[in-house]
Amino acid sequence: MPENDAIADASPALARLLSPLGERVAFPPDIPFQAAQARGKALNATIGQITDGRGGIVAPASLSAALGSLAPADRNRAMLYSPVEGIAEVREAWRSWQRHGLSQRGDAQVSTLPLVTVGLTHGLSLVADLFGGPGRWVAVPAPFWGNYRQTFAVRTGAQIVTAPAYRGGRYHCEAISEALADRPSGEPAIAILNLPSNPGGYSATTAERDRIRASLLEVADNRPLLVVCDDAYAGLVYEPGVPSASLFWELAGLHPNLIPVKLDGATKELSFFGGRIGFLTFPFERDSAVATALESKVKCLTRATVGSPPAATQIIVLQALKSERARAEVEEIRQRLGARYRVLKEALTTLDPKLLRPLPFNAGCFALLELDPATGLRADDIRRHLLDHHDTGVIAIGESHLRIAFCSVRKSALPELVERLERGVADLFTGGSGL
Amino acid sequence: MPENDAIADASPALARLLSPLGERVAFPPDIPFQAAQARGKALNATIGQITDGRGGIVAPASLSAALGSLAPADRNRAMLYSPVEGIAEVREAWRSWQRHGLSQRGDAQVSTLPLVTVGLTHGLSLVADLFGGPGRWVAVPAPFWGNYRQTFAVRTGAQIVTAPAYRGGRYHCEAISEALADRPSGEPAIAILNLPSNPGGYSATTAERDRIRASLLEVADNRPLLVVCDDAYAGLVYEPGVPSASLFWELAGLHPNLIPVKLDGATKELSFFGGRIGFLTFPFERDSAVATALESKVKCLTRATVGSPPAATQIIVLQALKSERARAEVEEIRQRLGARYRVLKEALTTLDPKLLRPLPFNAGCFALLELDPATGLRADDIRRHLLDHHDTGVIAIGESHLRIAFCSVRKSALPELVERLERGVADLFTGGSGL
Repeated sequence: MPENDAIADASPALARLLSPLGERVAFPPDIPFQAAQARGKALNATIGQITDGRGGIVAPASLSAALGSLAPADRNRAMLYSPVEGIAEVREAWRSWQRHGLSQRGDAQVSTLPLVTVGLTHGLSLVADLFGGPGRWVAVPAPFWGNYRQTFAVRTGAQIVTAPAYRGGRYHCEAISEALADRPSGEPAIAILNLPSNPGGYSATTAERDRIRASLLEVADNRPLLVVCDDAYAGLVYEPGVPSASLFWELAGLHPNLIPVKLDGATKELSFFGGRIGFLTFPFERDSAVATALESKVKCLTRATVGSPPAATQIIVLQALKSERARAEVEEIRQRLGARYRVLKEALTTLDPKLLRPLPFNAGCFALLELDPATGLRADDIRRHLLDHHDTGVIAIGESHLRIAFCSVRKSALPELVERLERGVADLFTGGSGL
Repeated sequence: MPENDAIADASPALARLLSPLGERVAFPPDIPFQAAQARGKALNATIGQITDGRGGIVAPASLSAALGSLAPADRNRAMLYSPVEGIAEVREAWRSWQRHGLSQRGDAQVSTLPLVTVGLTHGLSLVADLFGGPGRWVAVPAPFWGNYRQTFAVRTGAQIVTAPAYRGGRYHCEAISEALADRPSGEPAIAILNLPSNPGGYSATTAERDRIRASLLEVADNRPLLVVCDDAYAGLVYEPGVPSASLFWELAGLHPNLIPVKLDGATKELSFFGGRIGFLTFPFERDSAVATALESKVKCLTRATVGSPPAATQIIVLQALKSERARAEVEEIRQRLGARYRVLKEALTTLDPKLLRPLPFNAGCFALLELDPATGLRADDIRRHLLDHHDTGVIAIGESHLRIAFCSVRKSALPELVERLERGVADLFTGGSGL
């Protein structure tokens, strides 16, 4: 099909990365395709949405009143179908938001107009459908966000391969290349680069970014490599030496075998968790043949999984993106989280390292603690004990890590949280709680 | 796994219907699972969403202002994550909405608490993942909504099998059993029952419902049959003799091999197209072991495809569901569409049947016209000609059908639309336009 040809012309490596499903999808010439062609016609009887015949909504007032703060034209857009690829104005506005501050940098900065997804996870699932599939390796530094396993492995049959994200108490920049090192040369692979990270709360320093880039280039010398830049926590960095721009911009165009894909969204960047507005961006010129081909494939999958992304929450996001105040408001949120980060970091210095040690963190929403193996304790047992006896909830990751979401705890409560955590571990270690 | 056992205990037929993917999914004990256990704890550091530490939002005012019409507590819920299965109050309210008026009927009326999906298509895609898969037959009366093909066949490898939805100018009640008639006995199958239909705009009369039910029972004597009740257009019926309740309620519990699944949503029922709020309901007692097992599987797939459904639009839907005025407002919309329906039906009586004939319609949002084969014309050529020369958009379905969405054309313009359609066909039939 022409879409596959356009992809192969622009990037033979990307063509090799396509999954069987990725190869066979293309936006079909059915209702949304035909409806798009009919936009603006005097008589438009294409779309199955109830309107007044002039593009205005016909909706229960008890429902539309909830969007009464919007201008009437925006309310119309919010309540009617979004195009499958997202609302054009939202896509343009997000592109500007993404590229803010890039002009001072020397990177290639080539990117498509972002496609709207139903939150960042939908972007992951679209990438998994396009490039995953049975047996495809997905390299992830561990510990990692468990949903990568569902999205790539459980659904598509891809194989998660890991290497430690930390080594000797520091972030391990070569985790991805290490995870793929013993795989036969020439075979395509996917890597997930999640900085700032979940569950780690870590973002790389300038020196570490150089090492990450070098190690990914080394992988690309051996195989087509799709690097999924999961930029969910973009911008949330709290230490002066840590760059806040996505590595996507540095990786684009660096090597013919190295194709970064950017996934980001309003969920964390605009603190709109209930909106489910994410974006998927490829490292190609906007409106190029390859950009159009990839857009066609993504639209087919979006149409087949969710119909179209929510228009209402796109329009709500757009209110912020159009506002002159949004940058300052988001910076205020970053500073508020930064203050919590510093309090938590300080509180964690008092932890007994024979029980629990914080891994390095400097960004995002989380801190990750590692149980000393000598305790013989399991993270999930501690989690349950904290729920039952200390009125405290944290997340157990694997056998030996606990994640603290400081983004949802007030600053003044963080020292108490750390104390309870330590008490909880000590209870079980000494058997003091009788469990 | 215990989920598969619970399903097999309640319904061996349903267990046989599970796809390989459906068999292997279950909600994992990771972040949302652990976060659900921590709800209400004094210190809750489980979820990666930015709050004030007391469950209140910390968000850019330029964004949250768009939801300023909501009460503060509702605005909080709208902007924070929804549970993966949907907001409990929304699910309960939709259950009441679905079951309105059922108490006077004799049907079993057993159903689970609906799961929230990202619009009705997401429900289809969840059902396709759970029960589709390579080679599984999906029986659909034709012409059908093209997205069934993407959702079931392109994505999962299931095989669409069809039979004519109309025979001798009438709705063909045995289309599904006919489509499956020559398939080996004993093998499971899926059927799609879409009434009111898209693209047909047809809903069955009482006598036809009896025939449909009888023919599905006949299929169920031969094989496990999952009947997907695509109730997108529920309630939109315009003729007195046509029942408006979903066939789901009549099919539940009718035969051990016959398992209906109900897909419906606010998209059309509350005219909230941009909200993407749909629901997925199974024919089992709420909170039963099989209901919990199916919920676990759906939640795993929802988590892996979209993370969680949009909270903001669930809360907007909830405003209507809680309002005493909503039923009357929706009835007003139905009457408004009914008036258009009657005008269109009247206008179509003047069509030259040697060119174009309306198929029977009485419900939903559409009318479907069939080209006379003797014209030798293709539907898509007519569609393009109407766009280019008559400033008019309609949808071409297959080779010989045109769909009119009267839901998005004002009543007074419908006769003109029919005239243009006829002129367009006549242009090409006589060669008058020079195409």
